[in-house]
Amino acid sequence: MRNFGMKCSRCRAPADHRFPAHNARFCDDCLILFVNRQVERAIKQFDMLEPGQTVAVAVSGGKDSLALWDVLHELGYETKAVHLVLDLPDFGPQSLEACQAMAHRLGQELHISDVKELSGLSMDELWRGSHREYCSVCGTMKRYYLNRLCHDLGCEVLATGHNLDDEAGRLLGNLIRRNERHLLRQWPVLEGMSADVGPGLSKKIKPLCRLSVDELKIYAKIRDLPVAHGSCPRNRGATLLYYQEAMDFLDQNMPGTKRNMYFGFLDEKGGPPPSPDPVGRCQVCAAPSHAEVCIACRLILRAKKRGAKAAKGQKNRSGSV
Amino acid sequence: MRNFGMKCSRCRAPADHRFPAHNARFCDDCLILFVNRQVERAIKQFDMLEPGQTVAVAVSGGKDSLALWDVLHELGYETKAVHLVLDLPDFGPQSLEACQAMAHRLGQELHISDVKELSGLSMDELWRGSHREYCSVCGTMKRYYLNRLCHDLGCEVLATGHNLDDEAGRLLGNLIRRNERHLLRQWPVLEGMSADVGPGLSKKIKPLCRLSVDELKIYAKIRDLPVAHGSCPRNRGATLLYYQEAMDFLDQNMPGTKRNMYFGFLDEKGGPPPSPDPVGRCQVCAAPSHAEVCIACRLILRAKKRGAKAAKGQKNRSGSV
Repeated sequence: MRNFGMKCSRCRAPADHRFPAHNARFCDDCLILFVNRQVERAIKQFDMLEPGQTVAVAVSGGKDSLALWDVLHELGYETKAVHLVLDLPDFGPQSLEACQAMAHRLGQELHISDVKELSGLSMDELWRGSHREYCSVCGTMKRYYLNRLCHDLGCEVLATGHNLDDEAGRLLGNLIRRNERHLLRQWPVLEGMSADVGPGLSKKIKPLCRLSVDELKIYAKIRDLPVAHGSCPRNRGATLLYYQEAMDFLDQNMPGTKRNMYFGFLDEKGGPPPSPDPVGRCQVCAAPSHAEVCIACRLILRAKKRGAKAAKGQKNRSGSV
Repeated sequence: MRNFGMKCSRCRAPADHRFPAHNARFCDDCLILFVNRQVERAIKQFDMLEPGQTVAVAVSGGKDSLALWDVLHELGYETKAVHLVLDLPDFGPQSLEACQAMAHRLGQELHISDVKELSGLSMDELWRGSHREYCSVCGTMKRYYLNRLCHDLGCEVLATGHNLDDEAGRLLGNLIRRNERHLLRQWPVLEGMSADVGPGLSKKIKPLCRLSVDELKIYAKIRDLPVAHGSCPRNRGATLLYYQEAMDFLDQNMPGTKRNMYFGFLDEKGGPPPSPDPVGRCQVCAAPSHAEVCIACRLILRAKKRGAKAAKGQKNRSGSV
């Protein structure tokens, strides 16, 4: 974006960044202030964190999660960053390096865990034959292990880098498919559940929910965050991407559509979803679960069964030669 | 669309037309049959018409309304076509000629009325200074005069050429803007209201609601309907067009999205909206109206007032020279 004599809406200095959705223009300094304030505002508005509370931050190495870590650190929260190695070709090593660079820059520790080490299976193995979208399987496994890691680190709250575009795209999909269960649960905070035995459910928060992709991109650039570029090689055809692209188109032609839709929806709801019904425990891993075996364990068990079957088939075939 | 060895899903003849939303391919004859059956099905499914009932058909000269007239005629309904001259530059004369050609082809009378003659004002004059979208003003005036014309022709039912794309786009806009009042009323039939004095409200039906733009385009082409080409010169920037384009994008990438969204919404509703509250009558034109003066009369009165003021200003300016 070039500066054609624009002035910052806040300080009247020359402004480089224009945001039609707010009808605002910002210089670099005021954009950073804006991003910080939007995160602060989201935290207060949705009761995300108490002052001084330690928060686990899920960092992937992308601009959103690194910006989240940066801003929470800047706002004075004690953060414990966790990175989950997903074993995706090309994408994985870059992501880890980006998180390590960010940890070095902030002088903080990075807590690393590996889905393959934890489950004994790669994400591809977990997905194959699951009859689900790749992103759905990956999302389930990420939520499962991040929840456990958050618990292991002694944190009650887990912050993720979901931004306004993620939330608006998800909302559009839920509205179009009339997914009442997901609409009921769509809120920037999901309350946790304490547990007597084993890990409970950590409180999940999305402090970037007031910020668009464009705002975060510029923030990451101005702050020179060591972002891993490129996108996940497995998300092609993910339905969320189509809903996000449709929202982009609408927002470009009718600025503010994303923001008005998402916050209008939240305003109308008025408050967080009711606490989930008390749940039992997964018989395999003791995580809270509505079913006898939780979804993550089911994915793992199925993939292992398939793997064993394939190995047996191969052995039989070798034997018959 | 070219035929690359495709076979018709119905009769196995070579098929030229592919519809991913139904996972179907049709030859010309079967496409015509398909369109006829979809209209029949909509009429039955939503109790649009009783056998032998005469129906007023609003024809603009575009592919949708001419296809509607053609199919209703083909299905044996007695139709009375009405064309409202809208006084739009370039677009108007073509539209009228197309309707006249269609009337000639069907051996039917075309009932023509002119907004400018009826109201004393052009659509541009009605719109200017109304602080509303052009399409909204034009839509209000069309509904108002078509309702009156339908009554004058002795018809209880008015059919319009709204298709699946129109309805899905409108639904998307209503969902995104959370327009509860419009969501409540969105249904392919709006029941009429009889009146003791003056015109009542005719029953409004949309028999093409099961058919997409693509299906209707091909129908019009195969049937060689004398369609007026080009689009309205005044609808640029109309929000409905953006919602329709967003739905097109989603449907191209996830075939069936439009249809599933719209019919899923109707299924969930389960039935037509409750009858509107009894209304009073407009003090100016005696049409049913919730306000003392109906919206159409308010638009007319405001435009006339503005016109008189402008004329006075001009007279004063000429006098002062």
